[in-house]
Amino acid sequence: MEPCYLSAAAAAARIRDRTLTSEALVRSCLERIEARDPEVRAWSYVDSRHAIAQARELDKRPAEGPLHGLPFGVKDVIDTLDMPTGQNSPHYVNHRPSKDAACVAVVRESGALILGKTDTVEFAAGGRKALTRNPHKLAHTPGGSSSGSGAAVADFMVPLAFGTQTGGSHIRPASFNGIYALKPTWGAVSREGAKMLSAYCDTIGWYGRCVADLALVAQAFRLRDLAAQQPVNVRALRVAMCRTPYWHKAEPAAQQALAAAAERLERAGARIHDLELPAAFDGLNDAQRTLMLGEGGTAFLPELLAHGERLHQEFRDMVENRQAISAPMMVAAYDLAAECARSFDALFGEIDVVVAPAAPGEAPQGLHTTGEWVFNAMFTIMHVPCLAIPCIRGPQGLPVGIQLAGPRFSDARLLAIGAAVAPVIDADGR
Amino acid sequence: MEPCYLSAAAAAARIRDRTLTSEALVRSCLERIEARDPEVRAWSYVDSRHAIAQARELDKRPAEGPLHGLPFGVKDVIDTLDMPTGQNSPHYVNHRPSKDAACVAVVRESGALILGKTDTVEFAAGGRKALTRNPHKLAHTPGGSSSGSGAAVADFMVPLAFGTQTGGSHIRPASFNGIYALKPTWGAVSREGAKMLSAYCDTIGWYGRCVADLALVAQAFRLRDLAAQQPVNVRALRVAMCRTPYWHKAEPAAQQALAAAAERLERAGARIHDLELPAAFDGLNDAQRTLMLGEGGTAFLPELLAHGERLHQEFRDMVENRQAISAPMMVAAYDLAAECARSFDALFGEIDVVVAPAAPGEAPQGLHTTGEWVFNAMFTIMHVPCLAIPCIRGPQGLPVGIQLAGPRFSDARLLAIGAAVAPVIDADGR
Repeated sequence: MEPCYLSAAAAAARIRDRTLTSEALVRSCLERIEARDPEVRAWSYVDSRHAIAQARELDKRPAEGPLHGLPFGVKDVIDTLDMPTGQNSPHYVNHRPSKDAACVAVVRESGALILGKTDTVEFAAGGRKALTRNPHKLAHTPGGSSSGSGAAVADFMVPLAFGTQTGGSHIRPASFNGIYALKPTWGAVSREGAKMLSAYCDTIGWYGRCVADLALVAQAFRLRDLAAQQPVNVRALRVAMCRTPYWHKAEPAAQQALAAAAERLERAGARIHDLELPAAFDGLNDAQRTLMLGEGGTAFLPELLAHGERLHQEFRDMVENRQAISAPMMVAAYDLAAECARSFDALFGEIDVVVAPAAPGEAPQGLHTTGEWVFNAMFTIMHVPCLAIPCIRGPQGLPVGIQLAGPRFSDARLLAIGAAVAPVIDADGR
Repeated sequence: MEPCYLSAAAAAARIRDRTLTSEALVRSCLERIEARDPEVRAWSYVDSRHAIAQARELDKRPAEGPLHGLPFGVKDVIDTLDMPTGQNSPHYVNHRPSKDAACVAVVRESGALILGKTDTVEFAAGGRKALTRNPHKLAHTPGGSSSGSGAAVADFMVPLAFGTQTGGSHIRPASFNGIYALKPTWGAVSREGAKMLSAYCDTIGWYGRCVADLALVAQAFRLRDLAAQQPVNVRALRVAMCRTPYWHKAEPAAQQALAAAAERLERAGARIHDLELPAAFDGLNDAQRTLMLGEGGTAFLPELLAHGERLHQEFRDMVENRQAISAPMMVAAYDLAAECARSFDALFGEIDVVVAPAAPGEAPQGLHTTGEWVFNAMFTIMHVPCLAIPCIRGPQGLPVGIQLAGPRFSDARLLAIGAAVAPVIDADGR
């Protein structure tokens, strides 16, 4: 098997026991990129020579960090010292940051090397779409705004990559591309050096091809309580199937994915019940939209002042408050988010994990859309951790996933639960 | 009068009507710095030639932005494209950002020029203290972490400067230095490009020498509802005097300041009453400490990985969680902050403004301390806007201020109230 097909966890283990070099892995990824990226277009920047040089350096050193020798893709709204950070914006062409973003520094210091930058919706917020296509079916979107990161990991061009989520930009592409994703608890991973959209909602996450991959990166970030986790037995799990207040937006494929997950978990011995969320939760997506637009107006003010009419209309509209987001709307949105987060957390006396749709269905056709954030925004604004797991194939043969959610700062426990349920839910395997 | 003594508002008006040039103002500020800064040590970086060149360029152009021609000081944890950003840290000596922080870009695009960088507590978080002294009495601290910005504005070296507040780093130095400060509502000003400590608490604010100065900068940031404000009549104001749950920490000078403010406002015709906060508010300062330490651990992980034992103990302790901040503690802190913010906002049906101590007393002697955040942290964690106003002189002749606070996103109204009450509260004038 070509090394590029290895999961991050498998590759890390082989690098550690010296049956694989980082250089061989990187070369395999670069070959895959060369073969596939002219069609998939996941990458906005790759520097092969620099990547190989880094890999060689790592191969000389003992494997100390949890990510030693692993190549990482970085969504191009996240600063990198040694590569341009273009934001997919005409205003940032060839922009060279003077410093790695905090998350990039953490994975580098943990032994990873940055393979390149992945294409994104402009500023991860609106405006220009990525050029990336869904590797499972090129006429379809890979989702967004973490378009390139999702497609690159799915298409075996890189084992790990960063995405970001303000609405549904990280979990939805995982579902569309048939891969795994962790969106950690808000506040658990530093966003310093990543472009801001919403201070209250923006979250950095990562993609992998199995739960062990996600756990490896979680270890680098020292997420809380990782060491304290015990392996989880599916038979002891109390699983709450959550259609969310937005179930009417679920296409048959998403409905089937949730039903399949429930059936498979039940067959594996888990205790399944349906979760009806309190009525207050109905307003969460609107609240997320209010905060994204309101805080987005704050975030893009410097861009508007600098670029004026040349700035894409969508960002100008935020700054000029064309959606008439008022102070009382902002305050009500923050307060609803806090209230629902509290009552969501309180559910976890009776249950162990929530399972919900990760996207409304298969990836839509065309690159003019990145799909809908309708099943993601409510979790983002509550700051709770979400873990995406592939589940079924839809009528067009495209992947459809589900997501697990847990209370705030239960990331480690969610990963342990994910490790137990993923072989059951992702029954087709990879 | 030397131009350096002009308030920002007065200087802006003169530059606009061409009775003052930006160059003359900048030269006057630079002379003041030359005369005073060897003792006060407010600045970590000043580039006189660059500042004069910028001023000359601005003098050639029509005065379009609200801050046209005004020099601005920038706390040295905030990125500047044309000056080093040293964080008062041995790990950032001569670090040159590739981009202005969002707040710097906004004031530049509004016509301001950056005069230099002001000294700060390391990373605005701990570790090394600033070298800055209190310009009113050099043996005393100017407060911190926004030490240099507070002292520079107080000592007429620059009319405006940025500070930041996570606990009490912005409002407290205003009180210690006898100047005005606005800490806007959390989320109303972008923090992109400022060093992060606590994602939930960090707020960028600014200093000036009167309320009109603060309002000028608020205009540049397009804070909500500025245009809708009507002048406020003190006689119509319902003022709630708030001793806070931490009144036992107030020294006689702070007690006298609050009493003086109440007496002066009452004499001016305002309706005064005492505000007793609900018991839940007693936990706010502890909650702020929990979030600052917990999120600080997230923020400084990359620094620890990069610098190891060379990183100051205080930051290492945060990352290594020496204070044993647990997930339930974090969640309880977020939830208490949200609950109290909501009930604080609800007070404003019956009242117009809250008046509270801005600091426990006069600036303490010595540079080993920057004073206590005890009267600030509770407001920071509630995300509400605070406006510092000088009030009395304490027993050692040092200034003691008070702060106004309003509900979230009422910054514009708070500035209007401030404009009405400042001449009453700050009776000694400047």
